[in-house]
Amino acid sequence: MIAPLRVGIAGLGTVGAEVVRVIERQERTLSARCGRAIKVVAVTARSKAKKRGLDLRGIEWAKSPMAIAADPEIDCFVELIGGVDEPAGPAIEAALSSGKSVVTANKALIAKHGLRLASLAEQHGGALNYEAAVCAAIPVIKTLREGLAGTDIARIYGILNGTCNYILTRMEQEGLSFAECLADAQRLGYAEANPSFDVDGHDTAQKLSILASLAFGTKVAQSAVSVEGISTIAPEDLRAAADLGYRVKLLGVAVRTATGIEQRVHPTMVPRTSSIAQVMDVTNAVTIDGVGIPPITLVGAGAGAAATASAVVADIADVARGIRAMPFGRPVAKLKLTKKAPMERHEGGYYLRLMARDLPGTAGKIATRLAEQDISIESIMQRHPDGKVGGNGGARKSQPVPVILVTYATTEDAVRRALAAVQRDKVISGRPQLIRIEKN
Amino acid sequence: MIAPLRVGIAGLGTVGAEVVRVIERQERTLSARCGRAIKVVAVTARSKAKKRGLDLRGIEWAKSPMAIAADPEIDCFVELIGGVDEPAGPAIEAALSSGKSVVTANKALIAKHGLRLASLAEQHGGALNYEAAVCAAIPVIKTLREGLAGTDIARIYGILNGTCNYILTRMEQEGLSFAECLADAQRLGYAEANPSFDVDGHDTAQKLSILASLAFGTKVAQSAVSVEGISTIAPEDLRAAADLGYRVKLLGVAVRTATGIEQRVHPTMVPRTSSIAQVMDVTNAVTIDGVGIPPITLVGAGAGAAATASAVVADIADVARGIRAMPFGRPVAKLKLTKKAPMERHEGGYYLRLMARDLPGTAGKIATRLAEQDISIESIMQRHPDGKVGGNGGARKSQPVPVILVTYATTEDAVRRALAAVQRDKVISGRPQLIRIEKN
Repeated sequence: MIAPLRVGIAGLGTVGAEVVRVIERQERTLSARCGRAIKVVAVTARSKAKKRGLDLRGIEWAKSPMAIAADPEIDCFVELIGGVDEPAGPAIEAALSSGKSVVTANKALIAKHGLRLASLAEQHGGALNYEAAVCAAIPVIKTLREGLAGTDIARIYGILNGTCNYILTRMEQEGLSFAECLADAQRLGYAEANPSFDVDGHDTAQKLSILASLAFGTKVAQSAVSVEGISTIAPEDLRAAADLGYRVKLLGVAVRTATGIEQRVHPTMVPRTSSIAQVMDVTNAVTIDGVGIPPITLVGAGAGAAATASAVVADIADVARGIRAMPFGRPVAKLKLTKKAPMERHEGGYYLRLMARDLPGTAGKIATRLAEQDISIESIMQRHPDGKVGGNGGARKSQPVPVILVTYATTEDAVRRALAAVQRDKVISGRPQLIRIEKN
Repeated sequence: MIAPLRVGIAGLGTVGAEVVRVIERQERTLSARCGRAIKVVAVTARSKAKKRGLDLRGIEWAKSPMAIAADPEIDCFVELIGGVDEPAGPAIEAALSSGKSVVTANKALIAKHGLRLASLAEQHGGALNYEAAVCAAIPVIKTLREGLAGTDIARIYGILNGTCNYILTRMEQEGLSFAECLADAQRLGYAEANPSFDVDGHDTAQKLSILASLAFGTKVAQSAVSVEGISTIAPEDLRAAADLGYRVKLLGVAVRTATGIEQRVHPTMVPRTSSIAQVMDVTNAVTIDGVGIPPITLVGAGAGAAATASAVVADIADVARGIRAMPFGRPVAKLKLTKKAPMERHEGGYYLRLMARDLPGTAGKIATRLAEQDISIESIMQRHPDGKVGGNGGARKSQPVPVILVTYATTEDAVRRALAAVQRDKVISGRPQLIRIEKN
């Protein structure tokens, strides 16, 4: 029997406390699975006095995360503090530099400093495991890093943010506005007081940059991701999507194109029958398209203390068993720099919703502007203010009427030029709505 | 740089040939990911002369699987021959006994001899990797063995056989009979000439016994699985399921109950909105319910040369990287013996379809017999021969009319006793149809 793995945990919030509990509760299973015991020997957190319902007898209370990172009697440093700078960042660096393995759930830190940390792990021989940083217990990091080691990836996309998926689900099911559903999400604790990080797509972008690195061997770079959030989505877009056989999801998409790896986050129309379209409420999902093999979809909770702790403990168990994969699947030196792909060059189908000022003739005018850019129209739909779908006529001049178009695959550049021409024609009011379509 | 991993492959069917091609094509990626090269140094198959479109120059043609297993110049033995006895079984034993690591896609062999092979792997220090044996490239073995190492599993269930799911999908979508869809599946190569292994549930049972071992620490034992196939399912069951908000799937289910681990394979009604209900055609899916965490569902192709090869190559890459987990997640000595759970003790909801001889009064009689066994009825539905749902009356005596009942949770024993009483009443013709309901 090998000596126990000695674990030090910095951060005892809901996740940290649950990790301590799971390691205690699963003591025998973990020791059978790993061929050695896993022992929490030290913990630290901002307040020692805080009630956590934890029995910490026999566990040292370290004076700081750095004290755990520097302790030669500890093998594995578990960082559950959060934040990209002091104290999480320097403590992880110190732990890796001393040859310790590190387990973290800190997505922001991995997205920002992951490459530097991975280099330290490589240099000093420790593991850097962060399954919990992306989609909690959904084993997407392990699947990309190990499970598909020999498979070329063509595309990876997913619903990576539970808050946005919750809002879009409520909007669709109850016909409510974005603002109403956001307020509900905040009341339920699914969204922060400042919701921008979630609803504007930045959280999804951080996760996507990590997944793209594992899938395509790119250097993690949030700056390489084009980002749009869900705040412009209106209930009428979701209704139109349903009529057209789609559902709207905030997707993170990383895809290999002729010109490089395109990474983008935006509201997306996905076929209503696809696996990803079935994912509702706060649930997350990731689909991986390997070259030559049918897609693999992983679905589960993307957040929550128990699900996050499950992933953290599995990462610790991998350290105990001596399972080591390079943090981003390949040596840092082999990861390729990736630039933000210009969205104008994006190719795909588009959903467009324009508010026609004067219906008779407007639809024809719009169709002409699209045709001038060689854009083929798959469907065109005019909605009367009463919600019924119909042909021309019947609209009063005073009230703009939505014209909804779906295009066949084209370039974003062409769509933007066509819309600019339509706006110059002064036949529509307000800004056109544009939602990209992703086929499965 | 560590020396290359020297791989010998026995079996060059569609999967074996694809493995050779992928290792060749992904040479640089694999070497970056593993920190060492992976080299196929020997192969063997029944016929050397057969055209496979493979460039085997520089690769030794071994005279038998055993010759590869015994070759001291080989580190990793890849078995893609199939079959549980000669030559696959003894060759794997020899390879493991010599300390080699083994990668196999051989589900039948793992289900039958897995424990003995795992003991050999433990004793001699080699890996025994078999991701491809269950659901091809869906990383369910890795997820259970490593990804959820610290999570107590309450239940695992899945669609593990593509043939059955294809037949049920066609039956539902086109209203065809089992026999018609089976014939189509045979024509398309989805079903064997002798389809019993697939459609009677034995293939699912083999896979389930392996997943149950990983999830619950039981000894793999196909004999511990209660098995029913899909041949009794009629199109009217699928129509009724749709009306009731369900879909019928052949599930393998392993669940922890108060009296032990229950392992069963049978047609199952699953809620139409569940992730598992969305899985159509030959696609496979597995849902893992961890205690205290929301379910995780993995979806993908469960067969096919490319998907199977993807899993085989990932397993080889794990060997190259030195990733070692115990074959069944725990030492063989700690795996618990498990007996077949008596289905009479199974608890759950039931769908029942009985052919009433003489409708007026019959439904009431059936309801009374169920009530005598303390079974509560969630819904009762009578179908006229024209397919319309209706109340009593209108049926002609000459033609039996289906009465469809859904019960609340009860025991199978109670249901069987109630049905026996109904049969004694002579108010129904033929055998009652019974389909278990699985809630998510």
